[in-house]
Amino acid sequence: MRQTYLAEMLSKKYKVYALGFDKNIVKCNSINLFENIAQCNVRVDYIIMPLPCSTDGIFLNAPFCRKSIPIESLTTIANEDCIIFGGGINKDIEEVFTARGLKVFDFTKREEFNVYNAIATSEGAIQITLEELPETISGQKVLVLGFGRIAKVLANTLKNMGAVVTISARKYSDLAWAEVYGYNALHISKLESSLPQYNIIYNTIPSMVLDSYRLNLVDKNCFIIDLASRPGGVDFQYCNDKSIKVVWALSLPGKTSPVSAGRYIGIAVENILNDISKDE
Amino acid sequence: MRQTYLAEMLSKKYKVYALGFDKNIVKCNSINLFENIAQCNVRVDYIIMPLPCSTDGIFLNAPFCRKSIPIESLTTIANEDCIIFGGGINKDIEEVFTARGLKVFDFTKREEFNVYNAIATSEGAIQITLEELPETISGQKVLVLGFGRIAKVLANTLKNMGAVVTISARKYSDLAWAEVYGYNALHISKLESSLPQYNIIYNTIPSMVLDSYRLNLVDKNCFIIDLASRPGGVDFQYCNDKSIKVVWALSLPGKTSPVSAGRYIGIAVENILNDISKDE
Amino acid sequence: MRQTYLAEMLSKKYKVYALGFDKNIVKCNSINLFENIAQCNVRVDYIIMPLPCSTDGIFLNAPFCRKSIPIESLTTIANEDCIIFGGGINKDIEEVFTARGLKVFDFTKREEFNVYNAIATSEGAIQITLEELPETISGQKVLVLGFGRIAKVLANTLKNMGAVVTISARKYSDLAWAEVYGYNALHISKLESSLPQYNIIYNTIPSMVLDSYRLNLVDKNCFIIDLASRPGGVDFQYCNDKSIKVVWALSLPGKTSPVSAGRYIGIAVENILNDISKDE
Amino acid sequence: MRQTYLAEMLSKKYKVYALGFDKNIVKCNSINLFENIAQCNVRVDYIIMPLPCSTDGIFLNAPFCRKSIPIESLTTIANEDCIIFGGGINKDIEEVFTARGLKVFDFTKREEFNVYNAIATSEGAIQITLEELPETISGQKVLVLGFGRIAKVLANTLKNMGAVVTISARKYSDLAWAEVYGYNALHISKLESSLPQYNIIYNTIPSMVLDSYRLNLVDKNCFIIDLASRPGGVDFQYCNDKSIKVVWALSLPGKTSPVSAGRYIGIAVENILNDISKDE
Repeated sequence: MRQTYLAEMLSKKYKVYALGFDKNIVKCNSINLFENIAQCNVRVDYIIMPLPCSTDGIFLNAPFCRKSIPIESLTTIANEDCIIFGGGINKDIEEVFTARGLKVFDFTKREEFNVYNAIATSEGAIQITLEELPETISGQKVLVLGFGRIAKVLANTLKNMGAVVTISARKYSDLAWAEVYGYNALHISKLESSLPQYNIIYNTIPSMVLDSYRLNLVDKNCFIIDLASRPGGVDFQYCNDKSIKVVWALSLPGKTSPVSAGRYIGIAVENILNDISKDE
Repeated sequence: MRQTYLAEMLSKKYKVYALGFDKNIVKCNSINLFENIAQCNVRVDYIIMPLPCSTDGIFLNAPFCRKSIPIESLTTIANEDCIIFGGGINKDIEEVFTARGLKVFDFTKREEFNVYNAIATSEGAIQITLEELPETISGQKVLVLGFGRIAKVLANTLKNMGAVVTISARKYSDLAWAEVYGYNALHISKLESSLPQYNIIYNTIPSMVLDSYRLNLVDKNCFIIDLASRPGGVDFQYCNDKSIKVVWALSLPGKTSPVSAGRYIGIAVENILNDISKDE
Repeated sequence: MRQTYLAEMLSKKYKVYALGFDKNIVKCNSINLFENIAQCNVRVDYIIMPLPCSTDGIFLNAPFCRKSIPIESLTTIANEDCIIFGGGINKDIEEVFTARGLKVFDFTKREEFNVYNAIATSEGAIQITLEELPETISGQKVLVLGFGRIAKVLANTLKNMGAVVTISARKYSDLAWAEVYGYNALHISKLESSLPQYNIIYNTIPSMVLDSYRLNLVDKNCFIIDLASRPGGVDFQYCNDKSIKVVWALSLPGKTSPVSAGRYIGIAVENILNDISKDE
Repeated sequence: MRQTYLAEMLSKKYKVYALGFDKNIVKCNSINLFENIAQCNVRVDYIIMPLPCSTDGIFLNAPFCRKSIPIESLTTIANEDCIIFGGGINKDIEEVFTARGLKVFDFTKREEFNVYNAIATSEGAIQITLEELPETISGQKVLVLGFGRIAKVLANTLKNMGAVVTISARKYSDLAWAEVYGYNALHISKLESSLPQYNIIYNTIPSMVLDSYRLNLVDKNCFIIDLASRPGGVDFQYCNDKSIKVVWALSLPGKTSPVSAGRYIGIAVENILNDISKDE
């Protein structure tokens, strides 16, 4: 979905061709829609592949298209100076293009792209909390595990909504920053004794931080949201057995803020182009 | 619903009797449930009627009970020093109790009760925005009409989520406060020229502030949430005709945060009792 | 001082005459300076007296002028439609002008003027704290007594600098607002037991709230700033006897932010004129 | 100075010996004061050298002591398992101790130490601004150059005091973070055109960012504070020639918050010890 919003946004400044969407998805008149590569009789200057660009390494990730599009086929519509963008590009995919002398950039490697996505993820987490909790966030005792990008944005919003926020992390510098922004800071080695006091726990650490031992210490009415990417950081089976309420929230930007998620790709792509032109 | 959570909360400190709920609603063992007044063979020290306590002035507002309960019948279970609480108590209802020498207090007249409800209303408004908007709140240009309790709490959250917030109000002191908290402040007499720039508009003024003339100036993709109590402040019919997206969000605390809404009544009642004991 | 900055600011939009300043104080070329009333051969549309406009009820409060200027003499330079402004105008002074058919307005009665001054007072209090304290504000346990305008602005800044802020007030609605903004809220009747824990105490209540009994409970290294107007709210003699560090900070806006303080008068005067023109 | 406060703080938990202070500086009874190394007949477990530990590489940086103390002489009072701490330890100084089998740690390399010092630096910058500016910070248009630790903490405080804050930096990820926290974000390549609009400029970039060309674009009443370490980032001579008000604020933590600055060293040293014990 975010690709369609991206196409719409870019069509205000560029001539945009869209490939891999059935007609009823993209409705913007200024976008030129192609059903398949063969139909596409133009040569383009830029190609923006989706995020992730592929799930199998061979075909484009295009859930809104009935036919499969081989990634390699994109080279037939690329100008000789064409620049290729995409999310989650691995070595093999990269070589498909570099072997033909085309430049390839992965926008998910841009720090600002990840920061923007952290904003959208944080807002998605707030939405889930508001929907699931029959209480206000204001006044809740909240634990945030980890203090990376998502945790920083999320903790900021939670605190400003009136929650009492504790950050638990391993690095002392993270704990120092947590104090700067007005949170309680707790080294993760001292986590256990404080666990019973929280009403809501957000995890952002992608390793088994809330295992069965720690889950036993959590208040039975506590609500847990796991924001960590695979394999996650919560023993979901144990939560289920113990009737602890838990939500594993993955890919929130694309789900709850697809328009913004599309715009973030656009910004990252433009920043990459700016950086290229400066280097030259 | 909030009454059941209130009963549950109070049952930790007091002996609580619940009237007007069918059995499957209240599940807390420590609450003594009565199906009707006749069955109720106790004399109580405090009675907490719901919010609003009545919709017709005669019977209790009790949507979870099949039979009607006349407000007057409550006097038969009241101790002679019993204190009566309720929300939205009018003169006639008040007299039912004062005529029998009973003290009556309306908790909706407590400022702190209204402040707490403003928090819950604000969070409900944030929830609706996150659900309806395919974009993040961060980065949006937001207009808040009015600067009363709800507007103050809501603007605080929106700004801290990264929105650019403009407050429009009539009183210069409201505009000064708006500046203190970092919002753009715009006298309502100068509203028109700025209207096209907003992505989201929240109204908290209970009079027709967004009439057809002003709605014509609003951006066609703008999302409007009216938080004003009846009669509201938006020409909904005109929005419908013009396909402007609008939501009239009433009674949010009871809907989106019933547990908190119940607790607020409990706090207000305890504060009233504290004030009484100090006066004596 | 603030009057000179006010004159300078207004001289960009209006023709400004300054009276009661010796030549070396006002240096702006566009301001017409008069040494005394007799010399002043113009009739003006507006007169802005200082704050307070008089200390004895008869002569203008003009510390930068060697000669005394009777308030009544101002009427000789007033146009027949002239509007008079001033701060702290009492009944007698008002009558000097109204008896001649002139309109009089006290800008200190404008709520927005008092809000702006609360900002300047709060910043002055922060400055004093930073100068006197050999520690950062971040991490301090701070008590703010009262929750009026100054307390609201000050608490907001302190919290955002990383202090842990407790508000103590009498009204439950003030405590509810304190919670909304993320402070600890403590009813003033429960103040005593918490007093030993604070590193800094700001008082904004203009009555003896920190008397000898309560001062005995305060930590010996605690730093106290009294922001309350006369008679203040701290037993200064007792502080002195007990070597408790205390500062009574009066009239901060004029002292630490005279330019802003002048501009606030200008804004208030313009708002008064706006209100007048709307009423007509 | 911060070393004396550090000694005082540590004396509550440890047996502390102080070397290099004349008697009237350290007044705490629980600290054992030695005038010179010879007099010192104990063997200690930990030695904490000052920040910077030396200005010439040979003698201790000890401005409160009339006699010079060679760094090497410290080895004669060290236990064989003694751990050495200090700030700004270079290779040569390190070898003095490691050659004798002693462990050496530089606390200025701890991220949390630098974060805490950024807090103290930010508060010092706020103090200077409040002292120098005859206006409130609220309402000022402020530019912060760079978005490292100090800039992050400072911008947070400025914004919360009501300033309109613009961050200018080179990295797009810094600009994205700046937006998250509600600042205007401006790539440094586009700085020039916006320069005339700022009332206050804080520089945190340690290279000549405000050269004569850019200073010509700055408003003549603009106030500049350079927080960058040597060589600084402002052409001070040019400011002087053009009567632009500028302050170069170096080593603020030790000057304006010596107690906190001492405590930060204590925290860093304890965290280093914790990390050592975990590794073993």
